Amino acid sequence: MHILVIGAAGMVGRKLAQRLTRDGELQGQQITAMTLADVVAAEPPVGFTGKVTIETVDLSEPAASEKLIAGRPDVIFHLAAIVSGEAELDFEKGYQINLDGTRYLFEAIRHAHMADGFRPRVVFTSSIAVVGAPLPYPIPDEFHTTPLTSYGTQKAICELLLSDYSRKGFFDGIGIRLPTICIRPGKPNKAASGFFSNILREPLVGQEAILPVTEDVRHWHASPRSAVGFLIHSANMDLEQVGPRRNLSMPGLSATVGEQIEALRRVAGEKAVKLIRHEPDEMIMRICAGWAPGFEATRARALGFTAESSFDEIIKVHIEDELGGKL
Amino acid sequence: MHILVIGAAGMVGRKLAQRLTRDGELQGQQITAMTLADVVAAEPPVGFTGKVTIETVDLSEPAASEKLIAGRPDVIFHLAAIVSGEAELDFEKGYQINLDGTRYLFEAIRHAHMADGFRPRVVFTSSIAVVGAPLPYPIPDEFHTTPLTSYGTQKAICELLLSDYSRKGFFDGIGIRLPTICIRPGKPNKAASGFFSNILREPLVGQEAILPVTEDVRHWHASPRSAVGFLIHSANMDLEQVGPRRNLSMPGLSATVGEQIEALRRVAGEKAVKLIRHEPDEMIMRICAGWAPGFEATRARALGFTAESSFDEIIKVHIEDELGGKL
Repeated sequence: MHILVIGAAGMVGRKLAQRLTRDGELQGQQITAMTLADVVAAEPPVGFTGKVTIETVDLSEPAASEKLIAGRPDVIFHLAAIVSGEAELDFEKGYQINLDGTRYLFEAIRHAHMADGFRPRVVFTSSIAVVGAPLPYPIPDEFHTTPLTSYGTQKAICELLLSDYSRKGFFDGIGIRLPTICIRPGKPNKAASGFFSNILREPLVGQEAILPVTEDVRHWHASPRSAVGFLIHSANMDLEQVGPRRNLSMPGLSATVGEQIEALRRVAGEKAVKLIRHEPDEMIMRICAGWAPGFEATRARALGFTAESSFDEIIKVHIEDELGGKL
Repeated sequence: MHILVIGAAGMVGRKLAQRLTRDGELQGQQITAMTLADVVAAEPPVGFTGKVTIETVDLSEPAASEKLIAGRPDVIFHLAAIVSGEAELDFEKGYQINLDGTRYLFEAIRHAHMADGFRPRVVFTSSIAVVGAPLPYPIPDEFHTTPLTSYGTQKAICELLLSDYSRKGFFDGIGIRLPTICIRPGKPNKAASGFFSNILREPLVGQEAILPVTEDVRHWHASPRSAVGFLIHSANMDLEQVGPRRNLSMPGLSATVGEQIEALRRVAGEKAVKLIRHEPDEMIMRICAGWAPGFEATRARALGFTAESSFDEIIKVHIEDELGGKL
């Protein structure tokens, strides 16, 4: 079992490689090789005894994908993308990497399929940004994709390509729309959505965090551990049962900011909650208003995908995975 | 007012140019120039006194679109595509023309926009093939696009691009999902959907026609005259009121084959109906089962788009427009 991870230097990519190392197998077969690709050199996963190849590539170069699949990986996890904010600021770069890069990958696989029957499993990470306001709550599986960002547009287009290439038999693909990942480890960043993680992660280690929105803002979350779980399940499951609609909204937890704070209080006490500074920011409030409050995710749940069911659980996952199990 | 029609040699393109000639104006301004583009030379519309430029171009060549917009047309009707059957048989050609061709056009406009502020109205003809079975009846405006053909995939992708380019202000675009055009003038063709027109058009002139499906098959229709009406309305209307969801399922008439035949009986008598030969074809029945039975088209109707409300009316339109007004 040879696995290719594209976007392996990112937070989810690193956690995925570590999980694959721990599991040692995928689809019931021993993992003997991993190719870890990204625009910067990915770290080899600690403890992996098989062959590791680190590829530093720019997916927007047509030849990059040919090189990546030259070893005919059995499973390809495609996590690479430039993020929403950057794709919005740099229109051309967004399309080059998020759309053309993905299409080059799909085309390279199609050409290999026609040459030698290559037909890998392709797991593509899409995003809840494929939908756009006004949105019902919860959003049904059959709701249309009318993105309000170039990033969401690029993801929605790749979903369509993935279904068509899968229908034609060029590869066996599945697209998964990840919820907002919470609690995102690391430092606070400038993403408009950063506060959802900041207001929990920072107080848990005694640091202040800024809350720029009101507590009634509702959003859709899953832990990094769940995100990796979705990827593993996507690689293992029988895709025949998914049928031609290959893109699925992943399960998650719909919660208000107030519910996040209540969970923090239960897990870490009033002292932690007091570290959240309320500084309303009109611009972030306006951006937030267009975000998905939550999905039904009926199909994904029926297919065995699972996520956290409370923010207490999401916080505990963070404490276990990032803080060595203790506060 | 300078108008560019891409796909001007096709049936709808020809009727559009003729209608524009008859109207003499668009958006309340006199039409002084028409550029008619297609892979084969389009016929100049009879009676047009402005400047006509005939362009024979292959839209899948990146430079073609630059040439087409060199004269900075005020309104661009983009009707060009290779049809569903051909796009399914020739995967590469389908993507080259239906996706890349459209993207080259949008990119050429974006570059012109950045160079000199060019911002034309773009009317894009999409298709009901953007949806795929299983389908509810009627299909709501907010139903997701899960096409089951490469053609439908390409149209759905172009819809997404159109919305994003419009949102960014590069052009002022609208995508319209045309129903199946009925009664399509001309000779019977080999398209799987051809029988919807054949069973009316041929008997109306005393010819036999073959019906390959059962009479309970329900589908979604509008006349060629209505299709042209949608295009004109799309060019004239204020798109601010459409908002960011720039793709609309057009109104139409949902009817069973049995209802088509009853209308034929009322308009042309039992003699005409007797010319329909029932020859069930399993393959066509299976293909048909995946087609759209009808749409709510709530938004489009509210925005002033109109279509026929009975098959009697559709037949009468055909008699007026194609048979000189009499049977």
